Amino acid sequence: MSRQLHLNGFLKGAGEYHAGWRVPGNPPDAGVNFPFLAEQVQRLEAATFDSVFLPDLLGVPDDPPEVTERIAWSNDTLEPTTVLAALSTITSRIGLMATASTSYNQPYTLARIFASLDHLSKGRAGWNVVTSLNDAEARNFGFSAHLGHDVRYRRAEEFFDVVAGLWDSFDDGAVWADAASGRFFDPEGLHWLNHHGEFFDVAGPLNIRRPPQGRPVIAQAGSSGPGRALAARIADVVFTRALPLPDAQAYYASLKEQAAGLGREPLVLPELATVVAPTRAEAEDRFAAVRELLDPRVALADVQYWAGVDLTGLPLDAPLPPLPASSPRSAGAQAEIYAQAARDNLTIGDLVRIVADGDGAIIGTPADVADHIEEYFTQGAADGFNVSFPWQPETLVDFTDLVVPELRRRGLFRTEYAGTTLRDHLGLSRPASRHAAR
Amino acid sequence: MSRQLHLNGFLKGAGEYHAGWRVPGNPPDAGVNFPFLAEQVQRLEAATFDSVFLPDLLGVPDDPPEVTERIAWSNDTLEPTTVLAALSTITSRIGLMATASTSYNQPYTLARIFASLDHLSKGRAGWNVVTSLNDAEARNFGFSAHLGHDVRYRRAEEFFDVVAGLWDSFDDGAVWADAASGRFFDPEGLHWLNHHGEFFDVAGPLNIRRPPQGRPVIAQAGSSGPGRALAARIADVVFTRALPLPDAQAYYASLKEQAAGLGREPLVLPELATVVAPTRAEAEDRFAAVRELLDPRVALADVQYWAGVDLTGLPLDAPLPPLPASSPRSAGAQAEIYAQAARDNLTIGDLVRIVADGDGAIIGTPADVADHIEEYFTQGAADGFNVSFPWQPETLVDFTDLVVPELRRRGLFRTEYAGTTLRDHLGLSRPASRHAAR
Repeated sequence: MSRQLHLNGFLKGAGEYHAGWRVPGNPPDAGVNFPFLAEQVQRLEAATFDSVFLPDLLGVPDDPPEVTERIAWSNDTLEPTTVLAALSTITSRIGLMATASTSYNQPYTLARIFASLDHLSKGRAGWNVVTSLNDAEARNFGFSAHLGHDVRYRRAEEFFDVVAGLWDSFDDGAVWADAASGRFFDPEGLHWLNHHGEFFDVAGPLNIRRPPQGRPVIAQAGSSGPGRALAARIADVVFTRALPLPDAQAYYASLKEQAAGLGREPLVLPELATVVAPTRAEAEDRFAAVRELLDPRVALADVQYWAGVDLTGLPLDAPLPPLPASSPRSAGAQAEIYAQAARDNLTIGDLVRIVADGDGAIIGTPADVADHIEEYFTQGAADGFNVSFPWQPETLVDFTDLVVPELRRRGLFRTEYAGTTLRDHLGLSRPASRHAAR
Repeated sequence: MSRQLHLNGFLKGAGEYHAGWRVPGNPPDAGVNFPFLAEQVQRLEAATFDSVFLPDLLGVPDDPPEVTERIAWSNDTLEPTTVLAALSTITSRIGLMATASTSYNQPYTLARIFASLDHLSKGRAGWNVVTSLNDAEARNFGFSAHLGHDVRYRRAEEFFDVVAGLWDSFDDGAVWADAASGRFFDPEGLHWLNHHGEFFDVAGPLNIRRPPQGRPVIAQAGSSGPGRALAARIADVVFTRALPLPDAQAYYASLKEQAAGLGREPLVLPELATVVAPTRAEAEDRFAAVRELLDPRVALADVQYWAGVDLTGLPLDAPLPPLPASSPRSAGAQAEIYAQAARDNLTIGDLVRIVADGDGAIIGTPADVADHIEEYFTQGAADGFNVSFPWQPETLVDFTDLVVPELRRRGLFRTEYAGTTLRDHLGLSRPASRHAAR
């Protein structure tokens, strides 16, 4: 079979674009409205997407009040692992992924939750490993500020190893449930972890049999040095920002090489936001109407958030201030924004405009979007895409109704699911337990 | 309307009785088999139960290997909050409760999860507040032994206050989602918690609107002094052990009085396990067959677990050893077992027999069970029952098919749901936010 394109649907309340919630007709409770979400996930399943993915934040970000009160998703959103569990009952094939933080959780708890999700969904769960982003989150968990970048990544490495070890507590087939003898499991097939590390002491074993996928699918989105190292070592799927083709190719080649050195081959899925219409003019008009709804202060706060610097009071025609010495929220995102600003000689106002313009969104015809996908997919820049939807359900419906058929016409995307688990969809094998005989 | 009887279904894998999983015909994967569970929850909903309740353990208990390998539920079970989320989509009325530990979780995380469950279920979520039970759990969370009893309860008190405070982050109606103005919420209606306590520092606010019930229903099962104090202060529902009528009346009166002093009136629901058949002889035969399947070592371990003492090597005709000085797993359960043993002059072997005999289970006809329920309900010993099922689905089906109709005939139990939320079923009002105008 030819190489398969992979599509993940990134779902964020009323939409990924900051003003998406203001589009007329959107439900005012999109963030807590499960039926609204469920309908869209079922639509993506009908379009044979590999998976859906729910992001997460552990707090209301520290924006100025006039910004915070204009933002929907991060203020009012369901906890994603409970949502995945609910989705498991109303879908049968599509993969179900969510973000969970290694900085503010305990590995035993997350290992159970994702094992449970994998059982509930019969092998469709995935965990996007993040180290969390901001001080506001830290202050909800007993810290006065966010953990430093290096310590966060050391903790993430150890956290993952504990979780992965716990998933292998029972060997496959070790739970006999032998009613006749009364022996519920094979004692030779149960393993204590007895982990003692820098951050965690976890005895194990996990109190649930091995997940159907052996290990739920692991996603990661690190773009800093430690982030890439973690992705290369543990990720099955790597989510990246939308980048120009040469930058995307460079990232793709570099990450694949780093992972290959470890005998691994993760899939790289850049973000792709689209506003699609039968003609380019219609798509542009449609986006322009929503762009009108974006308060420029919200766009500025977004630049400030990812650049990891205080832009308060700076004129829009000024460049970004010098890189601060303090540890940024996201070293990878910060480096990318500073590199982009330096290369293209961008002012703060230019960066605000880029955010307001959709930050790399493809606004055009189904053929425009398919061309972009095909180019990245065939030119060594992507194994598929993490498709985000600026406002929902409209841009999602347009993608499934207009773009997916075009991708299928070109022979790039499946017309039906070949397997039943998320690993099946992604072409990943089921990992053997670390305790399995070699 | 006359006083209402409340019934909660306590669901534990293949059944509450230790040998329940060995009953012929039980699925060998009951603990991870969601459709098996779902069918039983739907049956309890058809029988208009107030709620179902899922217990939890955060690890495999420290029993001797020959005991551990004979136990099903605590070795292989889905994580309960994900299960409640999944149940929310396949039920529409029945309340959905689960245990979650205040000793090994963070309040921000649990506040989000239960708020999310309350939204997913449209007001049917409940949280059973526990402080956890054993050293094996502690060792999965970085502790070498379980936290002491007093510190656990101090932590639980503070944990609950933080969670309750976070649920009131947004005032009712404060999330405007006003698309026209672009203001998502009323800034006057968002409250930071800024909690700084002995165990937790939590800034807030919670990033989700107030739960439909204002506050999910709170259950508690403490029987020690600090446990009762916590229950009196925070519980809407108090689960208790099955006790002889005079003891149950004494507990009921004492807890109601303690709560009344705080202006509160929690419902008291003792445990009730039943094996029912059209005749008493049939019920006894049915139980005897399952009792045969119980390994006596498992029953002994159960006595040891709740008594909080090491019984290894002691003869069965000896009394319990003197109360140890160390802090027990559950001070309340320990005190009750020691009191029972002293009063009735019981040996270790007697206590093992009591466990093997179903530990207070009613084994008889539907009228026997209804008589018991009616007596406790009308004689100041119970507001309803936490009904457990020794093996599933058989004893559950017998309860819904044989006992519930008898209770309805006697006018003790509803024939249909009058409301839609768990608070409605329990006759509890929706609490106002702490920030609401008085």
